[in-house]
Amino acid sequence: MAYINLPENAVGMRGLMAFRPHLAPHLGAFTEGILSIDEGLTKAERELIGMMVSRWNECDGCEGVHGGVAECYLKDDGTLTEQIKLDYRSAPISDKFKALLAVAHSVQQGGKQVTNGQIEEARKLGATDIEIHDTVLIAATFCLFNRYLDGLNVWDSQAYTPEMYRERGRMIAEGLGYAPKH
Amino acid sequence: MAYINLPENAVGMRGLMAFRPHLAPHLGAFTEGILSIDEGLTKAERELIGMMVSRWNECDGCEGVHGGVAECYLKDDGTLTEQIKLDYRSAPISDKFKALLAVAHSVQQGGKQVTNGQIEEARKLGATDIEIHDTVLIAATFCLFNRYLDGLNVWDSQAYTPEMYRERGRMIAEGLGYAPKH
Repeated sequence: MAYINLPENAVGMRGLMAFRPHLAPHLGAFTEGILSIDEGLTKAERELIGMMVSRWNECDGCEGVHGGVAECYLKDDGTLTEQIKLDYRSAPISDKFKALLAVAHSVQQGGKQVTNGQIEEARKLGATDIEIHDTVLIAATFCLFNRYLDGLNVWDSQAYTPEMYRERGRMIAEGLGYAPKH
Repeated sequence: MAYINLPENAVGMRGLMAFRPHLAPHLGAFTEGILSIDEGLTKAERELIGMMVSRWNECDGCEGVHGGVAECYLKDDGTLTEQIKLDYRSAPISDKFKALLAVAHSVQQGGKQVTNGQIEEARKLGATDIEIHDTVLIAATFCLFNRYLDGLNVWDSQAYTPEMYRERGRMIAEGLGYAPKH
């Protein structure tokens, strides 16, 4: 049960946004701005970074929802996201994206964990400044989201099945997005 | 040296905002919305949470700047912020705020580290839902900022003296704020 009283019928991040409505448009537009664009990183890659950082932070809700969004973008039945979750280094994704996921993993552990060598490796494999920047910012942002949800005990993992995450992911990918709708 | 090429003459968070201008207004307005309000927590308390989370994340730049903002709000010559940094439990701040700093410390370590007992303790000492919510969100947000700056190696700690942090803090507290100005 959540540590604070949230509006009924609003779960997860949307419940928190409803609790503090003056923040919702800004946080929503920011999230939309880093996740819902294809520039350098595809939308699917952005969601996969979010899925993995959430997994490393043991935030089941975010891992489930953002894995669901990625699956929808990738038209994946869950096979690829599962491979990435189990060991992204051996998954069928580009070497450049693997190098960026390594950067994201360091960010999850702490900003100072990112090394010059990791950045050079990503760059050697073709990563641009924007891709490196967005990888770091997306990973850092999920360190916010994961702590926001779990720090207030908002997500009831028991209540969610894989199908529910997939459905939620489909809704976000196909138009709901992240910015609050009026 | 920063891992990516940033616009000249824009340091720290402002340099990052200039690099990705489509995100700047949203991130700025969000930051303003959680730090620059007196509702439950004072503006000074919000900055002190940011200062401490940054310290726990070993992000010198954010610790320095946000400590500087807090000092300006509190008309503190640095004595109080130093006491809080060294051991907030014995510093001359309210028991309620100490309980909220304990929650913030757990959030810094990971969302799941927050316990029901910590929340009950804060509530017993008078913390409201909004204060608990904002404490968790501010702590989570600094876990983003700290990782964003350090993950891109943006801050050159060597270049900053205590006086420079204090001056930067004064500028923010006295009108510059966090939202980008046009």
